[in-house]
Amino acid sequence: MSGAPNASIQIDDAGRLRHLITTEGLPRTLIERILDTAETFVPAAGAPPKKVPLLRGKTVFNLFFENSTRTRTTFELAAKRLSADVINMDVAHSSRSKGEDDLDTLYTLEAMGADIFAIRHPENGAAARFAAHAADNVAIINAGDGSHAHPTQALLDVFTIRRHRPDFANLSVAIVGDVSHSRVAHSTIHALRTLGTTDIRVVGPKRFLPDNAESLGVTTTGDIAAGLSGADVVMGLRIQRERIAGDALEGVADYHERFGLTASNLAHAKPDALVMHPGPINRGVEINADIAYGNQSVILEQVRNGIAVRMAVMAIIAGNSNAR
Amino acid sequence: MSGAPNASIQIDDAGRLRHLITTEGLPRTLIERILDTAETFVPAAGAPPKKVPLLRGKTVFNLFFENSTRTRTTFELAAKRLSADVINMDVAHSSRSKGEDDLDTLYTLEAMGADIFAIRHPENGAAARFAAHAADNVAIINAGDGSHAHPTQALLDVFTIRRHRPDFANLSVAIVGDVSHSRVAHSTIHALRTLGTTDIRVVGPKRFLPDNAESLGVTTTGDIAAGLSGADVVMGLRIQRERIAGDALEGVADYHERFGLTASNLAHAKPDALVMHPGPINRGVEINADIAYGNQSVILEQVRNGIAVRMAVMAIIAGNSNAR
Amino acid sequence: MSGAPNASIQIDDAGRLRHLITTEGLPRTLIERILDTAETFVPAAGAPPKKVPLLRGKTVFNLFFENSTRTRTTFELAAKRLSADVINMDVAHSSRSKGEDDLDTLYTLEAMGADIFAIRHPENGAAARFAAHAADNVAIINAGDGSHAHPTQALLDVFTIRRHRPDFANLSVAIVGDVSHSRVAHSTIHALRTLGTTDIRVVGPKRFLPDNAESLGVTTTGDIAAGLSGADVVMGLRIQRERIAGDALEGVADYHERFGLTASNLAHAKPDALVMHPGPINRGVEINADIAYGNQSVILEQVRNGIAVRMAVMAIIAGNSNAR
Repeated sequence: MSGAPNASIQIDDAGRLRHLITTEGLPRTLIERILDTAETFVPAAGAPPKKVPLLRGKTVFNLFFENSTRTRTTFELAAKRLSADVINMDVAHSSRSKGEDDLDTLYTLEAMGADIFAIRHPENGAAARFAAHAADNVAIINAGDGSHAHPTQALLDVFTIRRHRPDFANLSVAIVGDVSHSRVAHSTIHALRTLGTTDIRVVGPKRFLPDNAESLGVTTTGDIAAGLSGADVVMGLRIQRERIAGDALEGVADYHERFGLTASNLAHAKPDALVMHPGPINRGVEINADIAYGNQSVILEQVRNGIAVRMAVMAIIAGNSNAR
Repeated sequence: MSGAPNASIQIDDAGRLRHLITTEGLPRTLIERILDTAETFVPAAGAPPKKVPLLRGKTVFNLFFENSTRTRTTFELAAKRLSADVINMDVAHSSRSKGEDDLDTLYTLEAMGADIFAIRHPENGAAARFAAHAADNVAIINAGDGSHAHPTQALLDVFTIRRHRPDFANLSVAIVGDVSHSRVAHSTIHALRTLGTTDIRVVGPKRFLPDNAESLGVTTTGDIAAGLSGADVVMGLRIQRERIAGDALEGVADYHERFGLTASNLAHAKPDALVMHPGPINRGVEINADIAYGNQSVILEQVRNGIAVRMAVMAIIAGNSNAR
Repeated sequence: MSGAPNASIQIDDAGRLRHLITTEGLPRTLIERILDTAETFVPAAGAPPKKVPLLRGKTVFNLFFENSTRTRTTFELAAKRLSADVINMDVAHSSRSKGEDDLDTLYTLEAMGADIFAIRHPENGAAARFAAHAADNVAIINAGDGSHAHPTQALLDVFTIRRHRPDFANLSVAIVGDVSHSRVAHSTIHALRTLGTTDIRVVGPKRFLPDNAESLGVTTTGDIAAGLSGADVVMGLRIQRERIAGDALEGVADYHERFGLTASNLAHAKPDALVMHPGPINRGVEINADIAYGNQSVILEQVRNGIAVRMAVMAIIAGNSNAR
């Protein structure tokens, strides 16, 4: 997917957020508006999450063509805290399914009175296809499509970074793992670039490194010491065990030693570097439990912030829809 | 199932709707009351669906012994827009299960405080069995039982027709497809007959035509030209691919050409004939996508109206229950 | 699991209920407070269940690592009637899963803003493990862990008994079935003992009888006549058919004759003995349908009371949490 069509599809004629499909090409002003709005939804320390009536009377469909109880739950909670009615729909997606079937589902659920869809789909570009065919009053939020994009995860990542390290232009970020297949990494890299970060290093074994590093605007290395050297933020990615288990040269233990977020590997980064991970973690694979729950980690903050960021996206899109 | 026991089970001593099991034998006054009430729940053009407090404090169980995410969602939305609490229960139904097990489930859920059940079940007559054993303050709505009945689908069909062609007595309706196994077709035919329609044609290959055409009050034909000739309404039924795929003489393409709702087949009907389908459609099988989303089609109106009709049924039944 | 650590984990420094993990070691005053509170939630005869705002703004997660639609529904209804937001999460639990994975799940859902978890888990001690690691403002309710405990079922059992036979000290209770593997039986025995009942008989074939009868404070017998002789309460347990079906000497029919709650076996108990069962029943196996729905049976009362008891537990725990 090139950025241009997605970028244009998600912004209305007045330059406001219409859908959220990708962070690629999403203007800095819109990203900052989402982050600023999300700040209002983060509960104060020790306080319960806020419940606000911004989506009262609206219906949010969590339309998941790929099973993800955890991500579905974050959208469900965000929508309920905005007082929306929420419908969870897990839809089987077989290799036989066609894009046309998806559109029939879209049109049918629109006719039931859906206002917002959070869509998880195994195919790259699926969310954009839904957006291209959505009715005027219906918005699509991409909850992850193939290895393409996962924009709400990226926004919660930069939101979490901003709360601790607001000077994006002078930030060094290292992303460790299978960036080549990671929608999270792609979306987070785009968001960081737009916010002004220029020093983004992708670290991992050769076959995990993206082919398009230059156009992404990142540097790549297979050397964890070089990749983490002086980094302000170190982000681990969840590893599909299947991708490394069968590999004779590089089993799980070897991967953990070479690329896992461990005390010895982290020693290469700044002493107060933030440790991040999109979750769920594989202990002893891409991260060590002591690090995951250690005092540099903001992993659970990411989860908490994820609700606030998703509330912000839905509230902004619904507000824009009402204003049209 | 004969009509008499079902008809009597679903009406209380004062002649009011008590359960909704079948459209067979359902008095015209009750059908019209449902349709009139449903009119009040259809959102104005461009307006969001209404949310009303008619079922506040009531608990609606969607008790599905057969998987149907789509139908379940229509009942869930209808109940939520009436402000009910909704519990979704997907219950495994094995061939070993006995009717007694169903009753144990009914009694247990009644004890939990259920007010209304929307029940989908693979066996003919299951909804009537639940109704026969339901407590005084509990109502059963049949959400489809075997090949027997699917009354809310039938009511949304006649509701949709009435909005465009209110003179049921002078209507020619053609139903195309496997009527013999279709609970939708059976229920819609009963509703149309009660509302005064006398010209109902069933069109399809011989083995799809019902054995009891005469008692149903329909004519049958294997000739699409004759069946659609001068029709005001043409209703396609979803085809189970398995029923035609293995058939040497009549594959999917052949079925589509002979019985699909295509431009050339529809040319036999009136030029402004309504095109209907209960959904979900199989593009290129029983209907062509251009027709499904063309200007004669009311298929998406059917979906939208389905929420209003289900709200009406629940609201009327709950009102009658309160009045007893 | 010994009682002491569980007992201490579920009570806070002020002696108030903090989590609900087990009835073993749960003080009588706390049990009675739960039962008294539950009384306020039982609907009056013919009246609808009450809906109260005690958990408004709170989020209850039904976190089920083992499928149980029925139990999950009772917690969902109880939470909704307290006005909580409810999230249902069915989580796959494989034999490969480690306790650490559970903790990662706990920490993640806490970060999303969970207040109360109702947890069903296949492993003994799982609920206590969650409680040991829960955040200060988060409470765990054990919805059944392995063969260890099912405290809300035990509390609804003693609640139901108290409504009919309040003099626990002078009660004879017979529990019939596979007590050795039954978390329900274990929890109910502990609750009865704490409330003062000394005459508790466990009845069943030898391999179903608990090894630790003496420490449990029960007597055991394989003779149904002796076991039920003069009993005030006869409680049947659901039989796993697999446990008896393969047994040459003692098939289902034989089990039903020897240990089933039938008219002839019940004749050994007092004429007005209460008949109880945690449900769902296996008709013709551990109970006869005429008995299950006969005038001695309080089985459906148990279901109804189960909602009230679960409401009471959640309301008390939430109130204690607010007070800390």
